[in-house]
Amino acid sequence: MSAYFDRLLNAIQTNRSHLCVGLDLQPEHMPEGVWRDTDGFVHFGRAIVEATADLVCAYKPNLAFYEAMGGGGYHTLRKVLEAIPASIPVIADGKRSDIGNTARAYARALFDRLGFDAATLNPYLGSDSVEPFLEYGDCGCYILCLTSNPGAADFQIPNSLYLDVARRANEWNRNSNVGLVVGATHAERLAEVRRAAPDLPFLIPGVGAQGGDLETSVRTAANSRPDRGFIVNVSRSVLYASANNDYVAAARREAETLRARVEKVLSATP
Amino acid sequence: MSAYFDRLLNAIQTNRSHLCVGLDLQPEHMPEGVWRDTDGFVHFGRAIVEATADLVCAYKPNLAFYEAMGGGGYHTLRKVLEAIPASIPVIADGKRSDIGNTARAYARALFDRLGFDAATLNPYLGSDSVEPFLEYGDCGCYILCLTSNPGAADFQIPNSLYLDVARRANEWNRNSNVGLVVGATHAERLAEVRRAAPDLPFLIPGVGAQGGDLETSVRTAANSRPDRGFIVNVSRSVLYASANNDYVAAARREAETLRARVEKVLSATP
Repeated sequence: MSAYFDRLLNAIQTNRSHLCVGLDLQPEHMPEGVWRDTDGFVHFGRAIVEATADLVCAYKPNLAFYEAMGGGGYHTLRKVLEAIPASIPVIADGKRSDIGNTARAYARALFDRLGFDAATLNPYLGSDSVEPFLEYGDCGCYILCLTSNPGAADFQIPNSLYLDVARRANEWNRNSNVGLVVGATHAERLAEVRRAAPDLPFLIPGVGAQGGDLETSVRTAANSRPDRGFIVNVSRSVLYASANNDYVAAARREAETLRARVEKVLSATP
Repeated sequence: MSAYFDRLLNAIQTNRSHLCVGLDLQPEHMPEGVWRDTDGFVHFGRAIVEATADLVCAYKPNLAFYEAMGGGGYHTLRKVLEAIPASIPVIADGKRSDIGNTARAYARALFDRLGFDAATLNPYLGSDSVEPFLEYGDCGCYILCLTSNPGAADFQIPNSLYLDVARRANEWNRNSNVGLVVGATHAERLAEVRRAAPDLPFLIPGVGAQGGDLETSVRTAANSRPDRGFIVNVSRSVLYASANNDYVAAARREAETLRARVEKVLSATP
């Protein structure tokens, strides 16, 4: 298996896309005609993948939504993952964090058991909590740096903790498999993170339903890496682009629009 | 359902114990004679519960170990949970964290689907990431404050972030359902956390296999609440007290010893 960021670059180039779609299956948002049970969720998830697989560089299921399904969640997740072409890397968005011994179990669960290509990690517990993930040199590790939610102001922004995290993430990058999660809702601070970690790839959530500024984020995040140093994640605005039974076409249209917006900014950014 | 900390107090008083046993089933540590498959893990977990249920005030399965089992993990967890008497509260140790909308899905997974009485939460994402858990007023929310691992020195200790978390947790306690995770490996800092949050109950990991000082931790954490303001968690030193087929008796003996050590210190602490 080649390294995660090589596989990501390949998908970015093949699909001419920096768009990651978050496969966040929420029963309460399912469009008309989709059964609100395991079969319905699998059907919906696979339909979204089939409609967008040539438009994205990655998928990112948030594990919370599958766990909220109860006993059927694991099966649903596996069936949705099966539908994703091998050429598109998949990021486990679980924001896991625990002490070394336990973090090793989480890494095994995500990388060995479920076959994810990358994972999001919460840095609060420090080096030994991310180390077991870093050791999977072929897998990507996106460290939460500055998140897209209002609560980022509670602990991340005071004392510039998010910049400490960004600088520490540089040190964790000896296997070239570390990235940062930096929310699009903080365009001005995103520039500071880029200065603190010039070479680390960003995973940028917060555009779409959360209202972050896509254009400014892309301009600020882009660097000179072959992959240009970032991917942009959207979930709800693609998955639930329509509440009716035209949801597949609507999701594709929304993904096309977002992809084009990102690539347009990028082509105008030196 | 009564409030979580009332149920915990009841178990503390009934069993005269401040001991929480971490049900962390690790295949590589299973004693002789236990099958290394789902049936074996269920058998082992239930045997540990039966051997200790009159000696503990709570159980705390760490979700990582069940997730590392793959597809059989959810079933194993449910079967182990079934064996726990209703009078003993159970804490989901998942250290979950995500933005509000997604945190709500995690809360549903743990409290509604799996029926846990409490959960551990990572505070890095701030208020809106814990809010959906706090809203379950009958369930306990243990916020990671100062963890027992070496990596606590990376972000928690610089700028005294752990004290900011403790102070903020006071504000989150409007439903009287908030506690703090404070590792026994930092006895001197535990006193600072106690001053920053005089009334919040502590969940104290890090004694046993991690080498924290049990006696100092108990003396420092004890306050004037009826429940004395803390519980102590041990996992590996009880579960894997023997590598042979006397593991049930060995686990019970170790739990009895630890319970007695805690209660002895407590009875000498005003």
